[in-house]
Amino acid sequence: MKKLNNGKLRIIPLGGLEKIGMNITAFEYEDSIIVVDCGTSFPDDDMLGIDLVIPDITYLKDNIEKVKGFVITHGHEDHIGALSYVLREINMPVYATKLTMGIIEKKLTEHNMMRSTRRKVVKYGQSINLGQFRIEFIKTNHSIQDAAALAIYSPAGIVVHTGDFKIDYTPVFGDANDLGRLAEIGKKGVLALMSDSTNAERPGFTQSERTVGVTFDHIFAEHRDSRIIIATFASNVDRVQQIINKAIKYQRKVVVEGRSMVNIIEIATELGYLNVPDKTIIDASTLNNYPPEKTVIITTGSQGESMAALSRMAADIHKKVTIMPGDTIIFSSNPIPGNEKSVSRVINELAEKGANVIFQDAHVSGHACQEELKLVYSLVKPKYAIPVHGEFRHRKANATIAKNLGIPKKNVFMINSGDVLELDSESADIVDHVQNGEILVDGLGIGDVGNIVLRDRQHLGADGIFIVVLGLDRRTNELVSGPDILSRGFVYVRESEGLMEDARKVVTENVMETLSSGRNADWSKIKLVIRESMNDFIWKRTKRRPMILPIIMDIDV
Amino acid sequence: MKKLNNGKLRIIPLGGLEKIGMNITAFEYEDSIIVVDCGTSFPDDDMLGIDLVIPDITYLKDNIEKVKGFVITHGHEDHIGALSYVLREINMPVYATKLTMGIIEKKLTEHNMMRSTRRKVVKYGQSINLGQFRIEFIKTNHSIQDAAALAIYSPAGIVVHTGDFKIDYTPVFGDANDLGRLAEIGKKGVLALMSDSTNAERPGFTQSERTVGVTFDHIFAEHRDSRIIIATFASNVDRVQQIINKAIKYQRKVVVEGRSMVNIIEIATELGYLNVPDKTIIDASTLNNYPPEKTVIITTGSQGESMAALSRMAADIHKKVTIMPGDTIIFSSNPIPGNEKSVSRVINELAEKGANVIFQDAHVSGHACQEELKLVYSLVKPKYAIPVHGEFRHRKANATIAKNLGIPKKNVFMINSGDVLELDSESADIVDHVQNGEILVDGLGIGDVGNIVLRDRQHLGADGIFIVVLGLDRRTNELVSGPDILSRGFVYVRESEGLMEDARKVVTENVMETLSSGRNADWSKIKLVIRESMNDFIWKRTKRRPMILPIIMDIDV
Repeated sequence: MKKLNNGKLRIIPLGGLEKIGMNITAFEYEDSIIVVDCGTSFPDDDMLGIDLVIPDITYLKDNIEKVKGFVITHGHEDHIGALSYVLREINMPVYATKLTMGIIEKKLTEHNMMRSTRRKVVKYGQSINLGQFRIEFIKTNHSIQDAAALAIYSPAGIVVHTGDFKIDYTPVFGDANDLGRLAEIGKKGVLALMSDSTNAERPGFTQSERTVGVTFDHIFAEHRDSRIIIATFASNVDRVQQIINKAIKYQRKVVVEGRSMVNIIEIATELGYLNVPDKTIIDASTLNNYPPEKTVIITTGSQGESMAALSRMAADIHKKVTIMPGDTIIFSSNPIPGNEKSVSRVINELAEKGANVIFQDAHVSGHACQEELKLVYSLVKPKYAIPVHGEFRHRKANATIAKNLGIPKKNVFMINSGDVLELDSESADIVDHVQNGEILVDGLGIGDVGNIVLRDRQHLGADGIFIVVLGLDRRTNELVSGPDILSRGFVYVRESEGLMEDARKVVTENVMETLSSGRNADWSKIKLVIRESMNDFIWKRTKRRPMILPIIMDIDV
Repeated sequence: MKKLNNGKLRIIPLGGLEKIGMNITAFEYEDSIIVVDCGTSFPDDDMLGIDLVIPDITYLKDNIEKVKGFVITHGHEDHIGALSYVLREINMPVYATKLTMGIIEKKLTEHNMMRSTRRKVVKYGQSINLGQFRIEFIKTNHSIQDAAALAIYSPAGIVVHTGDFKIDYTPVFGDANDLGRLAEIGKKGVLALMSDSTNAERPGFTQSERTVGVTFDHIFAEHRDSRIIIATFASNVDRVQQIINKAIKYQRKVVVEGRSMVNIIEIATELGYLNVPDKTIIDASTLNNYPPEKTVIITTGSQGESMAALSRMAADIHKKVTIMPGDTIIFSSNPIPGNEKSVSRVINELAEKGANVIFQDAHVSGHACQEELKLVYSLVKPKYAIPVHGEFRHRKANATIAKNLGIPKKNVFMINSGDVLELDSESADIVDHVQNGEILVDGLGIGDVGNIVLRDRQHLGADGIFIVVLGLDRRTNELVSGPDILSRGFVYVRESEGLMEDARKVVTENVMETLSSGRNADWSKIKLVIRESMNDFIWKRTKRRPMILPIIMDIDV
């Protein structure tokens, strides 16, 4: 189990490489393991009823005596969301920058885990020592403030991990990316660069967050006579800051709607990341005291999420805000793949209420495009390139960039979650594969919904259930009651009485025949007969395949 | 019911205005009704298990003695797909251009409806007389050949219906749009223009289909050493023709994969819309006889549809084609909204197999952008503008174009399916609303799955089912058997034995208590007690809400 590393560093991603989400990577050197990030992912479309997905951390539990702590790059759910689950199983200290820690602490508080969790806030430029590792936090920029790139120093060499990033020379808050420090570390000699692949298919450069402010300014100037409603990602504090700045410039009051938006504004303001002058924000209940054209509403729901504030406004079920003809509504976001139809539905609903909906050009990405990736490769000059944070297609595009910059093909690693990449300055290779995977969270249940339950849900959802219940005297195998038939999600029974009655006749005949064939007709045989006869009958009559569930009751006459 | 029109024309859309799909519009003048198009739509995401959606044609059935026939603009499913269902209920003649009719006939043959359906092929420039109407077919261009715009002449005036269209001055096959004829009709004076809104949000001009041929040429020239696989829409015969042309130019053999692709190529070749020299197409089973770089595979699956040929190749379950490292695979398509994730999944699977996947710039739309819409408005000069074929947002964008061109706001009609728009040269107004809607097709069942069944499917799919079954002696109300508990899609029972055992105890207690409270405990009361106690218990323990199904068996002891 605990093999020696022979002076080599092991990089073991436990998630984040098959789809965007659930980022978690272990770095192991001899007796030390550190873990970078600990995120959730959204359930796939076929994971019916699942709330969220967290990583399988068996490998960390099996090596618990080595694990030194969690190092977090930034405060997005796909990087911090699983902490409140994982820390219950392996209670380790958490290291992060101030705002990131503020967001983590909000979660820990909700889960009543503040007292049990050691936490340390780290500043840019500062390093922490964890076992054989030293980790330096480096200023970077992303669609959330206080994002960090990491320089991970091990006896085998330095690994630079970009975290999620874009290069923003003119950020709204704080400094630009510390490119100088990346260059310095590059001069020392870097073993490997793990860089964000999200936008690696896109040519060019991602625009500065500040350009969105210019767009807002144009929109505010053009729509002086109407109320403005802006939906964006709650965690994009800089975006919120720019909206507030424009509200002040154009003398509007600000209403904040949506629980996550309220939370993040509270945290960011308290920690000094958001500057909101007194009397700028008003409560939604006082909206009627102001002329509409003197108000701005900042809201969640930019992804068309059915329960979010903007979706509730669009559906006319929001308690405090009613969409009015002439409202100007801005989607300051792009749909995340998979959300296109939900977003479009909300746009249609808003437009039907007479609102003027702006859904283009009021957003910039938080991830680096090709030219930014090239810049970072060129500064860091790694021996090995390990594209991370992306689906295969994104990571492959990142790998192509690395190869085009002269990194030999054999030094570019397309790895999968669970792979153990062992490396030093001499060589690098995938030497092993460890347990990893997705644990499904459904309500309070963690991991109790697996493939069998999901397959049943898919079957039930698509075709419904058809239940045949009968009572048997076990000793005599006589039919004492039934067979009764009932169904859910199959057909509207009142309009299909003939079908159901015919089914009852067919199943009765088949059961009677099996019973009369002798005492050796055991129950599993009877159930099989019911399943097969009903499958046949229903398919012939309807070309459908509901789940057939035979229930036999043991009657003690 | 059958009100007089008082010399007015009535336009009654029965579908196609809430989402893209299910196009069908009735035109009524006194004793005559004609129907333009008769399409299906895809089921919404919450219509679990539904195969397709067809329009409610109650209004046509109620006015059957007026209906003269179906006039079809082109051969896409959202314009012809419901014919084989609707014609069973109202058997009327069908009018369409040659290729469109060829595609319709393939469907009618499959449904064994050829003998019972009267059909007439119409040429561009030709008119048909149907009751009080005369309908002229006008050459237009779209992503399928033989598309027609319609001039509908009625005593109340002329309506021009664009059908689905783009303007292509350099089409691959046949003539450009007959803009001259639109101008002539415009000079006569047009009452209303109903125009395609699909791309009305997009500025500029849609590129010619021919530009895709240029892209193909570049790709073929650049990838001389690898096999080329191109996925596109089966019905885009011009696209297929251009691929075949490049195959010939670059001396490659062509393999066709996917049932719908094989069908359409057969129909189009037979009718003279596709020119395939002998020995160009080879059977997939002979692929191994040719060097990979001498072959092109044209395939279905450009939308990531799980059962389509390309998806099966990507998943390594295609019988005849195995993806090889170095294959060049082109998505000659854009994802239809909602299909983004499926397409991305297929791209990832192909890239993982070492294929080089090209998914940008090898496609053009079949729908007009803003400048094309402006051109048609300017030629036709309608008194009234009625944007059709699009979600609200698309139709609103089209309406804005009409207003910007000087059509008074009151003459621009944003109508909904079921609205009765009555118009003549004096005035236009929505005067009534008729029954309309979506009929769900599931297997052989047409309309037998309604809201109740769908809600059950959604519930079953998300949370599963929890069944409590018990046997009662009806006369004595004594518990003779059970309660037994079983579940599907809820939890993995083997790992939740404690939970299930506790549930059984709770339900037993509650049932016994109810029974002991006297004979007046009727069965609906007992079922209610089971439902409520189990809802509570399960929510507390799991924060889930499976469907609770109590089953009481009547035991005759």
